[in-house]
Amino acid sequence: MEQSVGAAPEEIFGLNKRAVLATDAPLVLDSGQRLGPITVAYETYGALNDDASNAILLCHALTGDQYAASDHPVTGKPGWWARFVGPGKFIDTDRYCVICPNVLGSCMGSTGPAEINPQTNQSFGLDFPVITIADMVRAQALLIDYLGIETLFSVIGGSMGGMQVLEWCALFPERVFSAAPIAATARHSAQNIAFHEVGRQAILADPNFHNGRYLDHDVKPEKGLSVARMAAHITYMSETGLTERFGRQLQDRDGVTFGFDADFQIESYLRHQGFSFVDRFDANAYLYITRAMDYFDIAARHEGNLAAAFQGLKARVCVLSFTSDWLYPTAESQHVVRALNATGARVSFMEIESADGHDAFLLDTPDMVRILDGFLTSAAQARGLGS
Amino acid sequence: MEQSVGAAPEEIFGLNKRAVLATDAPLVLDSGQRLGPITVAYETYGALNDDASNAILLCHALTGDQYAASDHPVTGKPGWWARFVGPGKFIDTDRYCVICPNVLGSCMGSTGPAEINPQTNQSFGLDFPVITIADMVRAQALLIDYLGIETLFSVIGGSMGGMQVLEWCALFPERVFSAAPIAATARHSAQNIAFHEVGRQAILADPNFHNGRYLDHDVKPEKGLSVARMAAHITYMSETGLTERFGRQLQDRDGVTFGFDADFQIESYLRHQGFSFVDRFDANAYLYITRAMDYFDIAARHEGNLAAAFQGLKARVCVLSFTSDWLYPTAESQHVVRALNATGARVSFMEIESADGHDAFLLDTPDMVRILDGFLTSAAQARGLGS
Repeated sequence: MEQSVGAAPEEIFGLNKRAVLATDAPLVLDSGQRLGPITVAYETYGALNDDASNAILLCHALTGDQYAASDHPVTGKPGWWARFVGPGKFIDTDRYCVICPNVLGSCMGSTGPAEINPQTNQSFGLDFPVITIADMVRAQALLIDYLGIETLFSVIGGSMGGMQVLEWCALFPERVFSAAPIAATARHSAQNIAFHEVGRQAILADPNFHNGRYLDHDVKPEKGLSVARMAAHITYMSETGLTERFGRQLQDRDGVTFGFDADFQIESYLRHQGFSFVDRFDANAYLYITRAMDYFDIAARHEGNLAAAFQGLKARVCVLSFTSDWLYPTAESQHVVRALNATGARVSFMEIESADGHDAFLLDTPDMVRILDGFLTSAAQARGLGS
Repeated sequence: MEQSVGAAPEEIFGLNKRAVLATDAPLVLDSGQRLGPITVAYETYGALNDDASNAILLCHALTGDQYAASDHPVTGKPGWWARFVGPGKFIDTDRYCVICPNVLGSCMGSTGPAEINPQTNQSFGLDFPVITIADMVRAQALLIDYLGIETLFSVIGGSMGGMQVLEWCALFPERVFSAAPIAATARHSAQNIAFHEVGRQAILADPNFHNGRYLDHDVKPEKGLSVARMAAHITYMSETGLTERFGRQLQDRDGVTFGFDADFQIESYLRHQGFSFVDRFDANAYLYITRAMDYFDIAARHEGNLAAAFQGLKARVCVLSFTSDWLYPTAESQHVVRALNATGARVSFMEIESADGHDAFLLDTPDMVRILDGFLTSAAQARGLGS
């Protein structure tokens, strides 16, 4: 399925695509290391129009992937935004060409620590260079070049996807017509870093980790990765949401068992989240992507001045946050909005009422849909895209 | 150091004391299991007056212990409330006799999973019965009997200590003259249970755990316990507090290292919290005490009616919460206050402004000191204790 530059459109658009990029020159990473050629796995939904003006780049979150609107190859579940991406949906694939790449460093086909290092013919493991959100975005820009797109009609994503959206606005402002960072932040806070560090230490503590070379030993640090996922999962839900959904309800029993079984539904739910995660995700990829997020601080490149990072941005930007999101709380979005305002950018902002916490961006949150629908429709008119 | 009933006062009051209790009949636990005799390790500060009316029971938190105002035997650090307990301090040991017991199930001398099971002559390990906060309080009541005290002048504690205070009010209302539950709750929420479950799974995932029999193998599940502590520690601090104290500051370096070292101060701090914890705490005790907290739900014994649990309580109660405590947020204290009000109890309540999160109760929080000082002084007058 690997494609080379110059392939016919029908070969580079569609499902289960992989592009080999940075073939002439390696990607120069923020660390100074060089990586290339690189593979970017991606899905596209809808056709690119003749002047390549209808492309939407959809950016996935930490444990997301390119299967935004297609069934997941491992779990068989519908894509993470399948309810929003398709014919007649608010991201209307009759109108837009949606591109969703797997981020650099991940584990669903894009170059990452589980892939083979051509220099050793072994998987990279911890030899993989530490990357940043900016590195992920640079790899995506190469993909967009390869697809023959100069300007993206829109760049949209939630959580780490929203961080990529912001990085697109900072690194390639001239290539972004509109942008929607959802439930995101322009920098990882101490608390954000702290939770990620707990997850990483859980993985590193697993004796099956083997210093990152677990694939050579035919094992996986499943318990450690599972604990990491459980800890992170708590941060994706609000206290209110957890209380409404689980409260102190017991799991298939009439009373507590006075033991360490999953007496409570919340325990059973969390354990399931942990166990099922390890089937579809690579522990090293989890280390690398969390690290990229922790390093994320757009303003740091401009001596703490976030507005300076967005100088010259002409794009319309729609910033969304959720009332009960305590991972990237509204204050972080407001910080972004203030910076965009200070540059004279066209920015709208809405804090959406929701009890679903950070995960609200993945759920059927009506206000989010209404606002993004209106934002895209208006931007499409300005872009001259037929309705 | 074990004492028998009838010992002279100078032998049962003081430092490094242990009482062997439930000698005639075992303690009947909430689980229905029987445990006894039991040892309760405790410290006392100040002298009991002639009519035994000046005793304050100080209840410690999850990872606390009896060393409230004495140096810790393992770490050498001052006791967790040393700044508040002593001659002339607000818990004035010239006036009050302060008793601080190590809770049942813990690991500093009271009967718990690391102690020897007399039936097997091995440490209990996971043969230790699962206990509840009420069981801890029943053991404390035996200690209070043993010390010759009928009514406690006050029962005071923060966090799990506050849960014990509330349980004292529910189980032994006639033995409590005043009570101060600080940063506490009358029930563990789904989010509270979730964080504890992450910690337990981290311990259980450690290959050194050996199904709880790690002492027989001369090892400890240190990595798992360390991860558990790290995850819990995040919940003890507020997002604002973490940002103020650590932010994104780097640890002894000028730039990030593009690796998995503790680049950030918050990472270094958390790792230190984890590593140092395992020296002073037993992993099984952590499992048992977190379980006791998760099972805590006073109202459940009264079909969800918390007020019914406090019927007949004559004590003056001072409920305190902290604005930035998201572990046991103010709403939980308000829930307690509403129930106490509904029983006609004498309850005062204050939410204290603090950026220190849950841990504010351990810190020099001036408003807390002022309020508790006033509360105790007023209660002492009512109790006829000279100033």
